[in-house]
Amino acid sequence: MKIKYNLIHKDKNSNARRGKIETNYGVVDTPMFMPVGTQATVKTLSPEEVKDCGSGIILANTYHLWLQPGEDIVDKAGGLHKFMNYDGPILTDSGGFQVFSLAKPKDITEEGVKFKNHLNGDSLFLTPEKSIEIQNKLDSDIAMSFDECVGFPHTRKYVEDSVERTLRWAKRGKDVFNNPRQSLFGIVQGAEFEDLRKHCVEELVKMDFDGYSIGGTAVGEPKELQYKQVEYSCKYLPDDKVRYLMGVGDPDDLVENIERGVDIFDCVSPTRLARHGHFYTRYGKLNVKNARFTEDFTPLEDSCDCYACKNYTRAYIHHLIKSEEVFGQRLLSIHNIRFLIKMMEEIRIAIENDKFLEYKEDFLKKYKGKKDE
Amino acid sequence: MKIKYNLIHKDKNSNARRGKIETNYGVVDTPMFMPVGTQATVKTLSPEEVKDCGSGIILANTYHLWLQPGEDIVDKAGGLHKFMNYDGPILTDSGGFQVFSLAKPKDITEEGVKFKNHLNGDSLFLTPEKSIEIQNKLDSDIAMSFDECVGFPHTRKYVEDSVERTLRWAKRGKDVFNNPRQSLFGIVQGAEFEDLRKHCVEELVKMDFDGYSIGGTAVGEPKELQYKQVEYSCKYLPDDKVRYLMGVGDPDDLVENIERGVDIFDCVSPTRLARHGHFYTRYGKLNVKNARFTEDFTPLEDSCDCYACKNYTRAYIHHLIKSEEVFGQRLLSIHNIRFLIKMMEEIRIAIENDKFLEYKEDFLKKYKGKKDE
Repeated sequence: MKIKYNLIHKDKNSNARRGKIETNYGVVDTPMFMPVGTQATVKTLSPEEVKDCGSGIILANTYHLWLQPGEDIVDKAGGLHKFMNYDGPILTDSGGFQVFSLAKPKDITEEGVKFKNHLNGDSLFLTPEKSIEIQNKLDSDIAMSFDECVGFPHTRKYVEDSVERTLRWAKRGKDVFNNPRQSLFGIVQGAEFEDLRKHCVEELVKMDFDGYSIGGTAVGEPKELQYKQVEYSCKYLPDDKVRYLMGVGDPDDLVENIERGVDIFDCVSPTRLARHGHFYTRYGKLNVKNARFTEDFTPLEDSCDCYACKNYTRAYIHHLIKSEEVFGQRLLSIHNIRFLIKMMEEIRIAIENDKFLEYKEDFLKKYKGKKDE
Repeated sequence: MKIKYNLIHKDKNSNARRGKIETNYGVVDTPMFMPVGTQATVKTLSPEEVKDCGSGIILANTYHLWLQPGEDIVDKAGGLHKFMNYDGPILTDSGGFQVFSLAKPKDITEEGVKFKNHLNGDSLFLTPEKSIEIQNKLDSDIAMSFDECVGFPHTRKYVEDSVERTLRWAKRGKDVFNNPRQSLFGIVQGAEFEDLRKHCVEELVKMDFDGYSIGGTAVGEPKELQYKQVEYSCKYLPDDKVRYLMGVGDPDDLVENIERGVDIFDCVSPTRLARHGHFYTRYGKLNVKNARFTEDFTPLEDSCDCYACKNYTRAYIHHLIKSEEVFGQRLLSIHNIRFLIKMMEEIRIAIENDKFLEYKEDFLKKYKGKKDE
């Protein structure tokens, strides 16, 4: 079945939304943060550990799975859920973000994008139809249209042309889409130009997608500009469809963008930060490799209910990360994912009580009061 | 308390023994294989996963923990069990094996061994007293005497002198040992010379250790020689104390040495093999990276009851290992550890029924019938 978004409550003092998404694999409460399982695994973690963090939905990357193991293998396994033994909802991206970071400008044509395979240098070509075909076979619950992800900075002229191409590509993808178990999202582009974002939303809505993503963010733009882009997109998006902001996951960005009306987010940061020893706390990000944690026999964060905080100390995790032991990365990954998802749980309650702005103010005051390590 | 070994049954047709070790952290059935947690973590796994494999006891390395985090940190944490959140029995080695692989012959003196820290090149000195002091602080359940691990090949003259030094070192270590919760093992050396092994056992038994280890194996000697060394040690060891063969863990070596009277084993192989894609099966060792597993949607081993085999396919693990995803290493580590421990469970039943030799014959016929990949 297609997903169904139910808007439960709108915060009285902001555009923050409390909702639910019904999927083939259960209900997802929103706002929600999605951990990233690039290669059909959330790095270092088991599906059970991801679920224990309260994760309602995860993301997998079409580009990576296309190259390895290939969509036909996943299809033969019975789809991504069976292949990776994950019985919760899965969203796939279109591959566009990776492809555009690998392609040269001259290789972006109306037909599609030519680029080199990052594993072996082979020449590859991705089109809107191919992206949908791969995702149909991966059998994720939510697929993304193939869009042009414009970098930063850029000219207005380039963005104007690119938005039109993104719209033509969205149409081409929708025309070949043929998996009845899957939902398809359109992607709003238009950079920081409100009229282009508005135009893009209007044209996508005419095509009637099952949900909408906000693209062109997390490409190196200043944070204030990111928030503007989100504002200029949400303002025109329909209330009855879910809104997904791609690639954004810093705690401060989560609250800023939820205020503007975003429902779901994804980002590699909780697991990537973990690999470098970083962990989130209410009072900012810390690095467990710091010498002051050598003899700190308290949890990563006193108030946290995650497996790492309930069972291990900063001193032990400091030792593991210094010793390059994978279990240290696992513990930090669990903590960081749980941190973001617990934020979402608290935010959902705040929205239900029309207190989102108070939550945001309180959160940012603590979180930004301290310099990141 | 000190450990207590209870010999439950001796196989009628071999020297295989079925026993139990009572420890501060529960009872360990023997024969038993111990997974290795070098740096206070069994590589890539949580303590719960190690326990789910049926592991009765694990090993941690004194040398590594001495360097990082240091025994004083572990002591301040409340000992190794609390530090790593493991509530099962833990055995520590003496550090000798690592130290002798790092030291030059001229740096081995009566007082101790000079060698270079493998992390930063600093000059270090380890003595029998220091090894015991470190282990006392680590607060493992079973500590090892500091012995000279003689390499292969060697001269009889060298081994003769070395056995005497090992005996003097065992005495020195025992004299300073002062942790009442901990048991201390003596280590039998003497290479392939039966009279030297006999002499070493007799002198150690006079000192009355809580158990005995068989050392000087797994140093590059031929397998037949290893079995001889074990035979020449077990023959003289007392029935009422546990016997531990250090660093041995190949499935064929396990059955050969259990036949000769060994109770417990440790080896890094199940987790090390996992990192290279290898996994055990009844019909030999396979490499999951092999192209024929790309579309193999069966478990690593049909008859296996481990978490990996119950939930994932060879095709998925092939994909994970090819993609260098840690979760693939985790799954193979779990399978390999479970494989060895399940062997131990079956062997215990075989011994109880005086059918160990039948088990061994059947096992080796299948296991060696196929070339390792």
